[in-house]
Amino acid sequence: MKNIYVEEHNTIPVEKQKSEVVERKGIGHPDSVADGLAESVSVALCKEYIKEFGYIMHHNTDECQIVGGQSEPAFGGGVILEPVYILLVGRATSLVGKKRLPIRAIAVRAAHEYLEKNFANLDADTDVTMECKIWQGSEALRSVYDSRKRKANDTSFGVGFAPLSETEKLVLETDNLIHNVIKKNNREIGDDTKVMASRFGDNINLTVAIAMVCKYLKDADHYMSLKEEIKEKILDNAVKITDKNINVYVNTADMPENNVFYLTVTGLSMENGDDGSVGRGNRANGLITPYRPMSLEAVCGKNPVTHVGKLYNLLSQQIADSIVEECSDISECYVYLLSQIGKPIDEPSFADVRVVMDNNSRSSFNSVKKDIEGIVEDKLDNIDSLTELIVNKKLRTF
Amino acid sequence: MKNIYVEEHNTIPVEKQKSEVVERKGIGHPDSVADGLAESVSVALCKEYIKEFGYIMHHNTDECQIVGGQSEPAFGGGVILEPVYILLVGRATSLVGKKRLPIRAIAVRAAHEYLEKNFANLDADTDVTMECKIWQGSEALRSVYDSRKRKANDTSFGVGFAPLSETEKLVLETDNLIHNVIKKNNREIGDDTKVMASRFGDNINLTVAIAMVCKYLKDADHYMSLKEEIKEKILDNAVKITDKNINVYVNTADMPENNVFYLTVTGLSMENGDDGSVGRGNRANGLITPYRPMSLEAVCGKNPVTHVGKLYNLLSQQIADSIVEECSDISECYVYLLSQIGKPIDEPSFADVRVVMDNNSRSSFNSVKKDIEGIVEDKLDNIDSLTELIVNKKLRTF
Amino acid sequence: MKNIYVEEHNTIPVEKQKSEVVERKGIGHPDSVADGLAESVSVALCKEYIKEFGYIMHHNTDECQIVGGQSEPAFGGGVILEPVYILLVGRATSLVGKKRLPIRAIAVRAAHEYLEKNFANLDADTDVTMECKIWQGSEALRSVYDSRKRKANDTSFGVGFAPLSETEKLVLETDNLIHNVIKKNNREIGDDTKVMASRFGDNINLTVAIAMVCKYLKDADHYMSLKEEIKEKILDNAVKITDKNINVYVNTADMPENNVFYLTVTGLSMENGDDGSVGRGNRANGLITPYRPMSLEAVCGKNPVTHVGKLYNLLSQQIADSIVEECSDISECYVYLLSQIGKPIDEPSFADVRVVMDNNSRSSFNSVKKDIEGIVEDKLDNIDSLTELIVNKKLRTF
Amino acid sequence: MKNIYVEEHNTIPVEKQKSEVVERKGIGHPDSVADGLAESVSVALCKEYIKEFGYIMHHNTDECQIVGGQSEPAFGGGVILEPVYILLVGRATSLVGKKRLPIRAIAVRAAHEYLEKNFANLDADTDVTMECKIWQGSEALRSVYDSRKRKANDTSFGVGFAPLSETEKLVLETDNLIHNVIKKNNREIGDDTKVMASRFGDNINLTVAIAMVCKYLKDADHYMSLKEEIKEKILDNAVKITDKNINVYVNTADMPENNVFYLTVTGLSMENGDDGSVGRGNRANGLITPYRPMSLEAVCGKNPVTHVGKLYNLLSQQIADSIVEECSDISECYVYLLSQIGKPIDEPSFADVRVVMDNNSRSSFNSVKKDIEGIVEDKLDNIDSLTELIVNKKLRTF
Repeated sequence: MKNIYVEEHNTIPVEKQKSEVVERKGIGHPDSVADGLAESVSVALCKEYIKEFGYIMHHNTDECQIVGGQSEPAFGGGVILEPVYILLVGRATSLVGKKRLPIRAIAVRAAHEYLEKNFANLDADTDVTMECKIWQGSEALRSVYDSRKRKANDTSFGVGFAPLSETEKLVLETDNLIHNVIKKNNREIGDDTKVMASRFGDNINLTVAIAMVCKYLKDADHYMSLKEEIKEKILDNAVKITDKNINVYVNTADMPENNVFYLTVTGLSMENGDDGSVGRGNRANGLITPYRPMSLEAVCGKNPVTHVGKLYNLLSQQIADSIVEECSDISECYVYLLSQIGKPIDEPSFADVRVVMDNNSRSSFNSVKKDIEGIVEDKLDNIDSLTELIVNKKLRTF
Repeated sequence: MKNIYVEEHNTIPVEKQKSEVVERKGIGHPDSVADGLAESVSVALCKEYIKEFGYIMHHNTDECQIVGGQSEPAFGGGVILEPVYILLVGRATSLVGKKRLPIRAIAVRAAHEYLEKNFANLDADTDVTMECKIWQGSEALRSVYDSRKRKANDTSFGVGFAPLSETEKLVLETDNLIHNVIKKNNREIGDDTKVMASRFGDNINLTVAIAMVCKYLKDADHYMSLKEEIKEKILDNAVKITDKNINVYVNTADMPENNVFYLTVTGLSMENGDDGSVGRGNRANGLITPYRPMSLEAVCGKNPVTHVGKLYNLLSQQIADSIVEECSDISECYVYLLSQIGKPIDEPSFADVRVVMDNNSRSSFNSVKKDIEGIVEDKLDNIDSLTELIVNKKLRTF
Repeated sequence: MKNIYVEEHNTIPVEKQKSEVVERKGIGHPDSVADGLAESVSVALCKEYIKEFGYIMHHNTDECQIVGGQSEPAFGGGVILEPVYILLVGRATSLVGKKRLPIRAIAVRAAHEYLEKNFANLDADTDVTMECKIWQGSEALRSVYDSRKRKANDTSFGVGFAPLSETEKLVLETDNLIHNVIKKNNREIGDDTKVMASRFGDNINLTVAIAMVCKYLKDADHYMSLKEEIKEKILDNAVKITDKNINVYVNTADMPENNVFYLTVTGLSMENGDDGSVGRGNRANGLITPYRPMSLEAVCGKNPVTHVGKLYNLLSQQIADSIVEECSDISECYVYLLSQIGKPIDEPSFADVRVVMDNNSRSSFNSVKKDIEGIVEDKLDNIDSLTELIVNKKLRTF
Repeated sequence: MKNIYVEEHNTIPVEKQKSEVVERKGIGHPDSVADGLAESVSVALCKEYIKEFGYIMHHNTDECQIVGGQSEPAFGGGVILEPVYILLVGRATSLVGKKRLPIRAIAVRAAHEYLEKNFANLDADTDVTMECKIWQGSEALRSVYDSRKRKANDTSFGVGFAPLSETEKLVLETDNLIHNVIKKNNREIGDDTKVMASRFGDNINLTVAIAMVCKYLKDADHYMSLKEEIKEKILDNAVKITDKNINVYVNTADMPENNVFYLTVTGLSMENGDDGSVGRGNRANGLITPYRPMSLEAVCGKNPVTHVGKLYNLLSQQIADSIVEECSDISECYVYLLSQIGKPIDEPSFADVRVVMDNNSRSSFNSVKKDIEGIVEDKLDNIDSLTELIVNKKLRTF
């Protein structure tokens, strides 16, 4: 019933291919802000449904449009000229019998709190205006969907892989370093970051964009020396992750001679013309990896009960991680899950696992095949456990 | 200067892999509607800039949020309960010296005309309300950007591949069949379609969703027999494309016993709760192919002069097509282009071509390598020609 | 039960007072556009309710915000830079049992048709964007309201007077002249007009503002000679209405020496920065008369069944007209109606009629008092007939 | 140059007329909220202009649309179902040379702070969503307007009167009592109030509507006894103001038998379906007085430098107050001011003062005529002083 297929795949692992491009949009990138808002709204609705009815009802809030504002940053000051506009979009069950749920009020509150909690230099009251167009879903869809039966709401597809390549690790850990170490010690560092690594052979260009908070920077010298400092910290960290040759570039669009720096009032580029929307940034593993198979399903904001577009992307990642962790000699592992609309979510149309063995060893493959099948079966059996992890924000979704 | 690398890649072509999932969202799918609107707005701006100033000025209108309306379809009738809401978003140069360009008026007009022209059963005047938040871009970005110098506006990445697998062809041609043949003869067929093929080994499940126009359908029998007719036509067409076993499914969420059919008033699911946004649907080749490398850059709506996120995706596709057309014994070809911010767009950071030769033949590869390099060089030299094709809507972008 | 009081009022009729100011905003003035849209939406809803349920259900769509666009008019051409934004606001019954009424779709359609029908030079598809926030009313209010019982929905007040003073007639007929005669023969004349008369003693300044349609005007000479022509026609007409001294001023803000003229692309000043909203323009008799008692209730958009704010303003006007028509020696007549919430609408808290007799003649008053009481009683008895007149747009409301 | 005319007017003072209707919408009534927001935005802009440029630049923010939300109040609790939507509208100078002023950011901040400061039970962050469509004004209008020359921006009209009738005083002081005394001691009292007095002969019906804050009310008994208590306090206060017979009615739409009470979560009826907009509520003296001459100009939000629609309404009130205060034997006084577009604001087209003397005494009139002329002249000479009072919020505007 679970249609699990495990096969050996003879190919060159990404690690050994000539080129590779990997990107991560940090938490304050406009697309990530949209993702984070959409997911927060969904989580808030989940909690309300559970509180009121004991189970999560139908909803999908996986659209959110951010329209950039305008600002005039300046060393030691700066001003917001136009508030950012945020439009929350989606569907949610609001009428249960005669009980009316305040879905839009919950959404606005959740979004507002998310902004307040995550973006230290944004005044969520006045630097942002927000509108909410989360409507009641269509009757037909709601009748298909009964969240308690856990049937797939769509024919949808998820994909995951493991392990990360060095370049991928480098991107992820550089982002971690910026937000969890450097930003903590340097209030000048904003929340909007982008880390892009392009590897060609053994050379990696690591390009980092960081929105700086202008009020904490007294002048161009301050800015330039901070940039230098950041660059060194990133490089120090990078050499711990990889032996490849690394060039680090920070804020490459700066033109000090023309007085152009990456300055912001709020630490967020959406303050000044950058728009964002859900599903256009990081995949569920936190990365954009065009050299890897990716699903285009937006994970953030989808309901964590029956939306296979969310569940299968998260589950395939978990399966891939477990396989690599528990089985030996695996160089690379890809997990593809396809749902069947209307069937229980633990019975996919297929669960296709492809492993690239170290040295393409056939015998190694035979020795892990059964284990892999067991892992997949077990994870599918326990797919329900994802829901709780999601509602408690224990799983990365962007 | 062009950093062209051509290499042989020993792997199993998608065609021969065990599983494959391919999808196309038809022109009326909410995400495609968003793509189409964004691109139409950009094209209209391009034409205005050319008319007024002789060249295309900075703009990116690659965001558009569609918030689904509500409807009450019924056999032989049906009514729109809530208009669809469309928010156009982006940046465009509106002030040139003292000359003020009517960018928002142009955008609204272009969007309105696009809806009128493409969706026969939609009343663009009253079934839709539209708002336009396309603002003037930030000064800094505009100063980086000088469209006449053709410098890359960002570090961005494009990818293309050729040829299409049978499954991919099947999806594309099934969509063509529906819109260019079946719809022409059956006014009951709406514009919102989705074609998804999942291949496992030699078996292909071809799942098709078609929004039906209820006013032209007198009852459930009419609907069911039309579905049967469509299914047969699709199957007849499919067997011309592939010898694999094909199962065709049409509107699988129907539940005739509960009176649930895929009915719409306008032929568009956005009338009833389906939201859409740019860049979440088809890639520039018209397909969603999670088994293939894909770029997450939204192509539609970006300016066709310096936005490498648009140009490199379109160009890499053209290069891949030419290579497969002009060189023999190539089983599969992938083209990866990475830009360097601030450098001329015809000087990428790398142009990495990977070819899978028939039978992994090394000698065949050696005999085509030079030709391939020549093709890439030539296409890069002529990247300017893309712009005109885009402005004249001669290139597929979604 | 009808609490009718008729009294003689010894005062100086407006006609004979030293000063007087009277104003009319023409059909295309932004406040009038808002009024017209609000009323059209209400009428469309009325018709739908009657069609579906046989009677008019609760609604009030008496708010509409017009946010001016931007334009760049020019002799012989001109362009819309920013579409006008129109926000329809209000409450309406949308759910009757399980039947869902498309109130917002009806509203958008009615508004769009109103614009198309009334404003020849406006492209309602693209010069305007529209949004509709007409929601379901609150339960409590809807339970108070039962349109079939015709109970007053509020403690509200209406006032009417007759006859018009010469100055008032002059304003009304000047507006008629412009729209029904001059505009018919001069396509250069826009729909947005304002006529203001200020009388001081026997001298009347008649100030007229007319938005001109620039594409039909080839240059400043054309404009200036048209203005002269209009001025003469208005003066010719004015001397038929009054013997007082009249100065006519047309578009007084023009500064030909600085190339400032009252030019528009659409014939509507809302195209270029003029905002408008319901209830800030003409009273139900078509005039703004600060020297007369006026109600501040917005008449347009209110439901014509139980909203006393609408009905009593229209009814008091009808009563005043009838009294002056049917009774002799009346110099001026004021009718004040106050409702009692929850009581039948034909049983006001008071109907207070004040008449100023010619020469303050007591005996004349005594001879008409009974007749007046009869008129008031009769009109109240037949208040239901107002509804049909309103739904058929037979009564002026602004 | 000042065109001052003072005349005796023989008529019956409002005080002695048979009927009278007077109304005041309290600070939390939706129309008053709109007024208060519009005025706060204007004041904030004034302060910014003064700070940046030393003088107040052109702006008018005299439109604001409030779209009611939805709520589900309940004794001891209650919940907001839909946030209120607030649209700020208007024109303001945003570009001065190359300096860009953050007019929309200032507006949103001012509006947000106004809500926070004035409405204790509203969570301005999450019970409200706000949008700002205050655009740059049209070039033509801005060129007419030069705030430093203090020329009238329009042909406009203002009117004021004094003294207040007993009924008018009663309404004003009842509103004061509720907000400044009763509310202070009873947190159950909301900010949204409406006081309406209808006098017929010597009988006054004083109808008061007060939105109650449900979380502070434990049950219907609590509510009913509070209502009784309020009613008594109002009555106790009323008898100090007038000897007429007074009936006080509080929340007359209540139907305890059907469990209908005037409950709100926020103390504001806009939370549940009540819309509001600028200029539809109180006149500048704080009252709606249909038996008195009134201007329909919205005072709130207009610029306090050249907008005669604002200045003349406030000035005529000041003049009337001074006349009654300084001259004896005056029973009633009306002041009418008409501007001339383009002329200095202290040179009206006419300043027409009408006084009703006690006992219609001609000799008394002759003895005060000169004084009155002096007062008018002096007030016109000092019209500039209004601006500062307005910017410091020292003058009532609604």
